[in-house]
Amino acid sequence: MKSAILSIGREIVSGITLDTNSHFISSYLTRVGILNRFIQSVDDRKGDIVVSVRFLLDRVDILITTGGLGPTFDDITLEAVAEALGKKLYLDTEALEFIQAFYERLYKAGKIDSPILNDKRKKMAYLIEGCKPLKNSVGAAWGVYLKDGEKHIFCLPGLPKEMRAMFEDEVLPIVEKLSDRVSLIKEVTVDLNDESVLGRLIDRVMKSHDVYIKSLPEGFDKRQMNVRFTAFGKSNEEAEQKIESALSELLRLINQHN
Amino acid sequence: MKSAILSIGREIVSGITLDTNSHFISSYLTRVGILNRFIQSVDDRKGDIVVSVRFLLDRVDILITTGGLGPTFDDITLEAVAEALGKKLYLDTEALEFIQAFYERLYKAGKIDSPILNDKRKKMAYLIEGCKPLKNSVGAAWGVYLKDGEKHIFCLPGLPKEMRAMFEDEVLPIVEKLSDRVSLIKEVTVDLNDESVLGRLIDRVMKSHDVYIKSLPEGFDKRQMNVRFTAFGKSNEEAEQKIESALSELLRLINQHN
Repeated sequence: MKSAILSIGREIVSGITLDTNSHFISSYLTRVGILNRFIQSVDDRKGDIVVSVRFLLDRVDILITTGGLGPTFDDITLEAVAEALGKKLYLDTEALEFIQAFYERLYKAGKIDSPILNDKRKKMAYLIEGCKPLKNSVGAAWGVYLKDGEKHIFCLPGLPKEMRAMFEDEVLPIVEKLSDRVSLIKEVTVDLNDESVLGRLIDRVMKSHDVYIKSLPEGFDKRQMNVRFTAFGKSNEEAEQKIESALSELLRLINQHN
Repeated sequence: MKSAILSIGREIVSGITLDTNSHFISSYLTRVGILNRFIQSVDDRKGDIVVSVRFLLDRVDILITTGGLGPTFDDITLEAVAEALGKKLYLDTEALEFIQAFYERLYKAGKIDSPILNDKRKKMAYLIEGCKPLKNSVGAAWGVYLKDGEKHIFCLPGLPKEMRAMFEDEVLPIVEKLSDRVSLIKEVTVDLNDESVLGRLIDRVMKSHDVYIKSLPEGFDKRQMNVRFTAFGKSNEEAEQKIESALSELLRLINQHN
């Protein structure tokens, strides 16, 4: 299973907000054995979102978008995703009731001026036809899960606390079932500081082991370097065994060299 | 002028490393008046890099890549960018001398075992034909600036301290000249906490002002919200004037509403 993340919002592409959402989601996906291949961030322009959705869905099985579900003019994610998939939006009555109750609660608590469902509030109840709505335990805007042929598309809010809650409660149980493996990551320190030498040893180990090995250079002041091993397996044990085998082979080659 | 950033590395798409490089670069680009439209991160797979370079160059004038310039097997950025542009790599003798001197210095300081130019070290001297090499004041791998027709492509290292030095020393002077405007950002706090109400007022102001206005909701506990104004202009003064005019109009509408 391959995945991609599309984060939507001018605040990200213009360098105002650091995209911690994509980092959060991708680390979870890796942990449950899914190979995340792309993280893309786009401006709130419908055309840019549409081409990005198509570009990514051509290349992966799972697409998770964040941002652009709220009430303002630049919240156009569902409209754009629907267009990219050739689908329409519909007014979800359950979402509408949820939004109505959400604002009524705020009004009764004296936090806003009016409980009336204006057009901006109502807008958040338009979801993509054929979707499973994803409930928001923190804010007003619901998300969307859509299975389109073999593709799985999730649209989540952009505010980190809303996104995280929806991801953990609603998305994770689904993607965990889609994946038939897990991953394991292990970092070790080895007695070599030169990537141009270590790289050749890593090449040799990776040719005979199903493990991704990455050197993490930090300069030449110490005679050491960290090395990260990533392996996938049907179980934690299988992944761990792959890493241990690759690690002992790499340590053997380093000893030979030193 | 529109731009895009492509960050290359499995550590980013798999959620191990947070991509602060793209955030750093995009905030600089915005400041010098360039509209950054995309930030994309890809795995170290040549095919993925090639299609991403083409996707982005179809849509922007300036492309800045980070990562994948080092000596290890997964450092394939220049090979992939060259393929995307239909160009070849060549051995840059000046870069080669620089790399040789770099490792000799480390060897003489007793920090590495050998000064010999092995294949991994030599690899970093292969640059893209027709490029202006970008010197690295921190590490061994040089970057690349390529003008291909009307497109400007920069390839920078992934290690943040190397990338930042190269961006500030070599890239910024070039992109500043490409841009004929600057941008200004101002955040103010207004007496309204409800995006579904404020959003309608912002819509009205944006229709008559050349300013991008973004509400920044933080929940409903306070009766206030921050609002961010972004404007471009030939000068700081022009951008500031645009913002002041939009701000006073928005404050007038909020007063009317409250």
